[in-house]
Amino acid sequence: GNTAGAVGVGVDHELISAVPSWNPTFVSRNFTDAEVQYCRAQPAPDASFAARWAGKEAVFKSLGVASKGAAAAMKDIEILPGATGAPTVTLHGDALAAAKVKGIRTVHLSLSHSQTVAIAFAQATSS
Amino acid sequence: GNTAGAVGVGVDHELISAVPSWNPTFVSRNFTDAEVQYCRAQPAPDASFAARWAGKEAVFKSLGVASKGAAAAMKDIEILPGATGAPTVTLHGDALAAAKVKGIRTVHLSLSHSQTVAIAFAQATSS
Amino acid sequence: GNTAGAVGVGVDHELISAVPSWNPTFVSRNFTDAEVQYCRAQPAPDASFAARWAGKEAVFKSLGVASKGAAAAMKDIEILPGATGAPTVTLHGDALAAAKVKGIRTVHLSLSHSQTVAIAFAQATSS
Repeated sequence: GNTAGAVGVGVDHELISAVPSWNPTFVSRNFTDAEVQYCRAQPAPDASFAARWAGKEAVFKSLGVASKGAAAAMKDIEILPGATGAPTVTLHGDALAAAKVKGIRTVHLSLSHSQTVAIAFAQATSS
Repeated sequence: GNTAGAVGVGVDHELISAVPSWNPTFVSRNFTDAEVQYCRAQPAPDASFAARWAGKEAVFKSLGVASKGAAAAMKDIEILPGATGAPTVTLHGDALAAAKVKGIRTVHLSLSHSQTVAIAFAQATSS
Repeated sequence: GNTAGAVGVGVDHELISAVPSWNPTFVSRNFTDAEVQYCRAQPAPDASFAARWAGKEAVFKSLGVASKGAAAAMKDIEILPGATGAPTVTLHGDALAAAKVKGIRTVHLSLSHSQTVAIAFAQATSS
């Protein structure tokens, strides 16, 4: 079969004020230590957390997995700046396993936020 | 030539309040029976109709067709949940014919809505 | 290596009122003559400038270039309607050079605007 090209796409948007980044339980359940450290060092930590949260949702959608139970913890979708500063996705645990089953090798991601809204777009590819 | 990869992308966003899903003529002209049945069964039918409307616009843009005349009825772009719950695009009629001419075999789609806004992203691919 | 498929994606959104298209310096620094002529001929020039501005940002992100210095002037990312009316990206200067280094041959772009917000999505591909 054709092993190049898109496998799935995902879009998400969030009101920054609706993402409870002030809640330590929400943060520790859904973000890795490296993500927390990065977001807290940004000029607007709440916007950074919201953008990453939208990013995790978008990546999740791009994987085309059936449901969002305990088996697809958002912490398993890690988003950190890469060499150029662009957000880079690393999958762990069950998210990584699901991606492997589907032949997904890379998830491209872009994030955008204004003062009130965060938007994320993800593309899962087999190349 | 290269027959894999992206052929076109499409993005659209709509204010949920601006999509006249309360109008039976608008609904019956633009949505299939299966789409209407699905949207009406959702917790927020107006948001579901708006998200699908944005989805149809995004898919239309991804096809790269010249104009939006009678030849490209939005009803020919059908969006229903697939096996995993993710929105799945089925083309009919002139939309299907246009896609075939361009070598488009799949249109990946993702939808996102908040309480007020619906966003859709579509990617037409030849793989 | 695999030479087909996605190389990078980019998303951006802008409040139309926040893009200073009333400012001749901003416009002449960032838009080509052909873009200015096109935007001024549209029904809502400020929305057209804002959508193109979001488009340039999204294309820039899709190129995965490290920083946005003088080396990546937004004027080098030109967005004009193609044969079908869809926005078409032409790269010039340093943006073109950066794309070539990465093996990017086409950047697909879609724009969407409502009365207040413009959203752009770009996908850079090697095919």
